[in-house]
This record gives sequence, structure tokens and C-alpha cells, in this order.
Amino acid sequence: MSESVYEHWLRVRYAETDQMGVAHHASYLVYFEEARTRMMEAWGCSYADCEKAGVGLPVRRLEVRYRSSAFYDDELRVLTRVRDLRAASVTFDYELRRASDDVLVATGWTELACVDLHAAERKVTPLPDSLRELLGRG
Amino acid sequence: MSESVYEHWLRVRYAETDQMGVAHHASYLVYFEEARTRMMEAWGCSYADCEKAGVGLPVRRLEVRYRSSAFYDDELRVLTRVRDLRAASVTFDYELRRASDDVLVATGWTELACVDLHAAERKVTPLPDSLRELLGRG
Amino acid sequence: MSESVYEHWLRVRYAETDQMGVAHHASYLVYFEEARTRMMEAWGCSYADCEKAGVGLPVRRLEVRYRSSAFYDDELRVLTRVRDLRAASVTFDYELRRASDDVLVATGWTELACVDLHAAERKVTPLPDSLRELLGRG
Amino acid sequence: MSESVYEHWLRVRYAETDQMGVAHHASYLVYFEEARTRMMEAWGCSYADCEKAGVGLPVRRLEVRYRSSAFYDDELRVLTRVRDLRAASVTFDYELRRASDDVLVATGWTELACVDLHAAERKVTPLPDSLRELLGRG
Repeated sequence: MSESVYEHWLRVRYAETDQMGVAHHASYLVYFEEARTRMMEAWGCSYADCEKAGVGLPVRRLEVRYRSSAFYDDELRVLTRVRDLRAASVTFDYELRRASDDVLVATGWTELACVDLHAAERKVTPLPDSLRELLGRG
Repeated sequence: MSESVYEHWLRVRYAETDQMGVAHHASYLVYFEEARTRMMEAWGCSYADCEKAGVGLPVRRLEVRYRSSAFYDDELRVLTRVRDLRAASVTFDYELRRASDDVLVATGWTELACVDLHAAERKVTPLPDSLRELLGRG
Repeated sequence: MSESVYEHWLRVRYAETDQMGVAHHASYLVYFEEARTRMMEAWGCSYADCEKAGVGLPVRRLEVRYRSSAFYDDELRVLTRVRDLRAASVTFDYELRRASDDVLVATGWTELACVDLHAAERKVTPLPDSLRELLGRG
Repeated sequence: MSESVYEHWLRVRYAETDQMGVAHHASYLVYFEEARTRMMEAWGCSYADCEKAGVGLPVRRLEVRYRSSAFYDDELRVLTRVRDLRAASVTFDYELRRASDDVLVATGWTELACVDLHAAERKVTPLPDSLRELLGRG
């Protein structure tokens, strides 16, 4: 990954574990979401502000590969970068590592479509130029 | 509880367990929510329809007493009834039992305020008469 | 899909929606999990019993394609089938449709590894013959 | 509240919102849990370590009062303190405020029982002296 990678730290919550004693696999999608929105904020395009301006980025497709378990209270480091930027979508890559020993916990990506939240049908719409520019800065 | 008690069955999902091997305590609020909305639907006042009509019922206060653990895959029986009905709020009582042995798992209540979802500030507003009547039928 | 497809119905809970007014994308993993475990139960290999016997099936890899939004209270039909069965893993395919209009909501798959829950390191282990046979019956 | 109050900051995740556009009421229990476990860690009695030593603190009873909505991306300040410390239980008080304007979002408390995680029935057991001392330091 290049220098445009964004690092975000978080810790596994108790509520996110399951009876196998590990972070439930659905929690990783929430970690990815937190990481990419923090990256967007750091890059000057807060996702909260995007929605206020009527621009939504719902997830259209994703893949996750679980490499090693994450445990309660583990500090995780999420590395995020923009892998692909198109007219009306953006794809983020993620790499999730345990901070204490740098073990690779998971990798994944999410493809997000750009939609007009003010339109009745929320149809796909080109990314606003300003957003496109900020996301493409990496 | 009187004949106006509504019974709802559900099963503990794997994702709802935590590493203690039981349903996480926050899951119970979701069980209560599912139970009361199913009761409302059965009584002719679907909560989904309420919101479409601009009437929201956010939780204003709640209490839960955890009596016995619920485990993954347990079938639970949730008994719900309207305990109190006021001008602009309604309080539901819940009793949660494991179906297989009738063990009491939890009891609790939630007080919901009636708010106008179309108003900018979503201030508290009287329950519409029709809703009040349906909720008070017990 | 062949006759070995299992149908499971569920309804979108309020807690599963997000502020975009749709079921949050992480909820789909929980729907898939519920569907495959209900299928396993119907086929005579309850996942709860598997774990009691020391056999775990953690998710190792997954993909989801979101086709159309699911909304609060929507009844969803999840079609599940075993796509691939290997010595120490099993892959399930899912198709998620809204019951009212049969609209395709999402498709996806999850690859699960078989692990020995009693081993210290929970290393991957061959699927027990009985489980393999039941999963392969389709 | 006295000087023994512990402050914890967190931000509302997108996945925690619901279609009413606010943090879902069940999320607050997770915020409380995160806050008290961070307090315990800061005070030298990490909850993760407690469980490793066979001591669990499941929630036995709780109450929450929702005062004002919390929104996506809001930074919240959770003030936690030990309100009551008994032979085999501990009660934490919480106050949740939005960091930007100090608005009171919610108050609540959780009563936790001390249980022996190694015992078959996980019966209630006195708090270990060391834990009791650390929790009572406030």
C-alpha cells in the first residue's frame, strides 16, 4: 500500500464477541465502515457532511477474508486505502491487524455506489467533483 | 397478566451471543422491540405504518432485570402487554421465558414517547386517537 | 438452484435499520447465518449440537452483493444451498428476496472452515463424516 | 459526581443509527459497557483479565433514561462511577453527554453480579478482595 493509506485504531468490544470467544464476523463490516469514514473525515470529506448534502455511499458489494481471530479487548489497526475510483462508485481496501503482534486478522474491500439521497428512488449518480477529488488524492 | 397479553416467539441468534456463552444483555432490548411491534401489528396498528404517517415512538426510559441466561438457539417466548397509556406516551411490560422449560429469563418495561416525525424538533405530541384506542384495547 | 435449496423467512428488525432508512449492510451476514443454521437444523445437523460436540464452523471468507434495499418490517426469503463441500470446509450460497414482490435484495456466499473447538489452537480439522454426509445430501 | 468519575469518549457509529436517524436505544448499553470496562482497565482491574481469572460480571439489572437524541458521528462523553459496591455485586452509574454542546443524552445504571465462570452453574460468588478494593477506591 502507498502513502495514501489511512491508519485507524479501535478495540474489540465485549458486545462484538460471540460464544466462540472471538469477534463475530459481522463486526468486521462495522470496523471497515468506521475506518473508511474516519479516513474520509481526515481527508476533508466527512461522510456525515456528505449525507447532509444529499450524497449517500451505500455498500454495493464486499468481500472479507478472515485470516486470524480477533479477541475481546484486542486493539486492532485498520489500514484503509482507495483502490478504485469510478464515475459513480468508489472501492476501499482494508487490512486489519492486531496492534500488539501485527498479526494479520482480516483483509477485505467494499465497493460503494454514490446515490442521490434526495431523489425518490435514490438512483446512482456521479460522485460530486469535490468528493471525487478528495477521494482520489491518494 | 390479563388476556391482553401478546405472545411472541423468537430464537437467540449466534451473533447475539457473547464470549460468556449467553445472549448479550443488549440483545434483550431488540427482543422487546420486536415483541411490541409484532403486538402492535397484530392489534391493527403496525409501527411501520405509524412511522409512515409521521408518528414515532422512541424509547424514553426502560428497565430490565436479567433473571436467568438465554443461550444460543434457545426459543424464547416474550409476553408483552400495555401497562400504562397516557396522553403522549405508552409503557409496555415484558416477560421473557425460555420455551422449552418455561424458565423466566428476564422482565422489563419500556416507556415510549409519542413524537411528530415531521416536526423539525420532533417534539412530544399526543398519541393519535386511533392509535390510543388500539393500544388501550387490552 | 436445485431441490436442495432451503427457504427461510425472516423480517427486518427496527434495530437493523440505519439512518439511510434501510437494513444496514452488516445485518445481511446475520441473516445468512440464521438461514444456514436453520438449514443445518432441518437437515439433522443442528449447529448448536455441532458446537456442543466440539465442532465449530467459523466463517473464513465471504462475499455479498447488494442488489436492492431491504426496509424495516420487510419479510425476506433467504434461499440457501451448499455450493461446495471439501474435506475441511463448506461453502454456502445465499439469495435474499423480498417476499412481497420477489425482488432480489442480495446474493452472497460464505466459506466456513471446520475447526476443533477443544484444541488449544482451534486448528482446521476434517469435517466429521456424519456432518459431511448430512451437508452433502443436497 | 466525585473525583472518582471516569470519563470516556466515543463516537456514534453509522451502524448504530436506526431509521429514525438517531443512535438506536440498544446501543447505549454497549456504550455503558465500553465505558465501565475502560474505567476498570484504567483502575488496574482489566475486565478481560478478570474473565481470564475466572471472574465474570454479567449484568443483572439496568435502567436507562433517554434525555436527548445522539446522532451519527456525535462525539459522546460517558461519565462513569461506582455507585454501590456489595459483597457479590457492583453498580455503575452513567451519564452520557454530547461533547460538542454538553447536552445530556442519557443517564443510567447497571448492576453487575459477580459469578464464578469456572463453576458449572456460574453461581454468584463474592467479589475477589483485590477487585473489590480496586472498584472501591473512588
